Amino acid sequence: MSSPPAAVAACRLAARRLLDELPDGPVLVGCSGGTDSLALASVVAFEVDKTGRPAGAVVVDHGLQAGSADVAARAADQCRGLGLDPVVVRRVTVDPRHPGGPEDAARDARHTALRAEAERLGAVAVLLAHTRDDQAEQVLLGLARGSGARSLAGMPARRGLLARPFLAVTRADTAAVCTHDRLEPWHDPHNADPAYARVRARGAMSVLEEALGPGTRDALARSADRLRADADALDALAADWLAEHAEHTAPPTTLDRPEPPAHGESATDPGHPQPPPAFTSLPAHDLATLPAAVRTRVLRLAALAAGAPSGALTAAHVLATDRLLTHWRGQGPVSLPGHLAATRSPGRAGRIVIGPLDRVE
Amino acid sequence: MSSPPAAVAACRLAARRLLDELPDGPVLVGCSGGTDSLALASVVAFEVDKTGRPAGAVVVDHGLQAGSADVAARAADQCRGLGLDPVVVRRVTVDPRHPGGPEDAARDARHTALRAEAERLGAVAVLLAHTRDDQAEQVLLGLARGSGARSLAGMPARRGLLARPFLAVTRADTAAVCTHDRLEPWHDPHNADPAYARVRARGAMSVLEEALGPGTRDALARSADRLRADADALDALAADWLAEHAEHTAPPTTLDRPEPPAHGESATDPGHPQPPPAFTSLPAHDLATLPAAVRTRVLRLAALAAGAPSGALTAAHVLATDRLLTHWRGQGPVSLPGHLAATRSPGRAGRIVIGPLDRVE
Repeated sequence: MSSPPAAVAACRLAARRLLDELPDGPVLVGCSGGTDSLALASVVAFEVDKTGRPAGAVVVDHGLQAGSADVAARAADQCRGLGLDPVVVRRVTVDPRHPGGPEDAARDARHTALRAEAERLGAVAVLLAHTRDDQAEQVLLGLARGSGARSLAGMPARRGLLARPFLAVTRADTAAVCTHDRLEPWHDPHNADPAYARVRARGAMSVLEEALGPGTRDALARSADRLRADADALDALAADWLAEHAEHTAPPTTLDRPEPPAHGESATDPGHPQPPPAFTSLPAHDLATLPAAVRTRVLRLAALAAGAPSGALTAAHVLATDRLLTHWRGQGPVSLPGHLAATRSPGRAGRIVIGPLDRVE
Repeated sequence: MSSPPAAVAACRLAARRLLDELPDGPVLVGCSGGTDSLALASVVAFEVDKTGRPAGAVVVDHGLQAGSADVAARAADQCRGLGLDPVVVRRVTVDPRHPGGPEDAARDARHTALRAEAERLGAVAVLLAHTRDDQAEQVLLGLARGSGARSLAGMPARRGLLARPFLAVTRADTAAVCTHDRLEPWHDPHNADPAYARVRARGAMSVLEEALGPGTRDALARSADRLRADADALDALAADWLAEHAEHTAPPTTLDRPEPPAHGESATDPGHPQPPPAFTSLPAHDLATLPAAVRTRVLRLAALAAGAPSGALTAAHVLATDRLLTHWRGQGPVSLPGHLAATRSPGRAGRIVIGPLDRVE
């Protein structure tokens, strides 16, 4: 038997490395039928054939394009042909009012379905086929939004049940797997539609590489790795500080609150439920001594703890709250999303208090 | 008197904001005669005319192009015409063997000359004309190198004597100042030469903005601001940890060292003198408990403290040293630049020791 091309070997090795890290138990491949995920299904089937680990696949039908059910059925057939078992198709509903736009909405629906299937089938991991190219494009998109380290850090190789073994390989590598293994991938017309930010990022990436050198894509992914480590450290420091210094008071009793909607329904968007608001209080003087990068993260976590919806809480909200520490001149409360406000009580023993807008003064 | 165009007002405001922050005393503008720095010279002259603060200019002649002395003399005349005083031209020698390449070499020579003039003239600050566009391009270049947060953080608005009031305005704004104030800027042919990374970054930036939206340039600069705060916090944490936990031993005595070169000359590049190597030792177990982002920064600082030349110390060196903590299997020393090595002594009380290669075991 001749050895496979280097690109195929790299993809198989990436899958094997991840599988070796996982506990015993079945794995699932998230497969759309596209080049990357079909290649992942193929190399996972190849690797588990040697170890006997059970491996199945989940094909998510987003129902966003005509014929999407046929595309999903064909991808499922290809996965079965590779020997994966079980192979299931899950139809999901994509929230058209998702605050992050259509791409985030599709991703959230997809991840929810994948996690649910993993739990139902007792899988130890769901493998996703994002490549180093996807990672670089993700970083570019974060940059275009003026994001901080967490967003620029791109996609993690592991988070909870989700694992991304192909972050170590390129899109060219996965294409080589499909050719080598005689797989005919589906070409999503959305991947050529410049209405999608990711498609535009892909085009920009090519130009960037032409201008700045052929290593730019790898360099972006490397930057992402380093920024992820930074964000992890700073987020952990902020969470530790908050756990040690914050005082939380219970939400106000129902006597003080507006009547709940009839039939126990939530008045808020059922897809994005919010916890009832509580008060979070922090010692202002201690907080002011923290470096800005930790302090702003503490303020963000405190606003979330008080019930601010994460999608609506922006850097501008956090910076406005931070001015209660850095530019304190006795100013009034800062409005925060979720009908909340942040205020500061005067004096050296003063505290930053975040709570319901109509009860904070 | 009619009010100036908004772009001119923005540039004047940016200069005024910075000048208001500075202590009393003269300021110097670093001026090349190009659009940005000529605009800066003009708005600084306009602003100090109202306050009476002395303001001069330094024109650095890098001697890299034919006729550079004429260009410098013309820029100096323009500065004098604006009322700046004193206006001096400084000819510098750009190190052709600079490890960072010709652009870094020119910048280092320029900054050294500017600082020297500032000290000679008792200036409280040297004002540089980098704009928000320069900042965005700087971030792109950092990304193309796979850099961490410090490098992606771009240029600081203040560091030591150097100040950059125009990071808040755009290149279009500075061009508007030159038009409004009837100044004829010099157009450096190097600014159109794609041999320079910065020129290529400028082109890439336009394409990126076309692909990802007109706010991309601002977004990149905003990302830089946030990453700078992160890098400041993590660098400070690492420095604090090192100060508390590291043990340094003096450099070996001359008896143990090779004979110094004759006539007291340094054997190393005179432009980049290295301190004599010493031993730096860190408690391995405590170090291993730090988050990766802090730990790798501690290791980098420790290697620098032991005498590693900063230009030659790469992320790969630091990660190899980190494996003595994260993948400790009794392995041998890790080679570091500057004829150094890092090693780990075994056991829970083990230490990471960085010192001269031939004396670390």
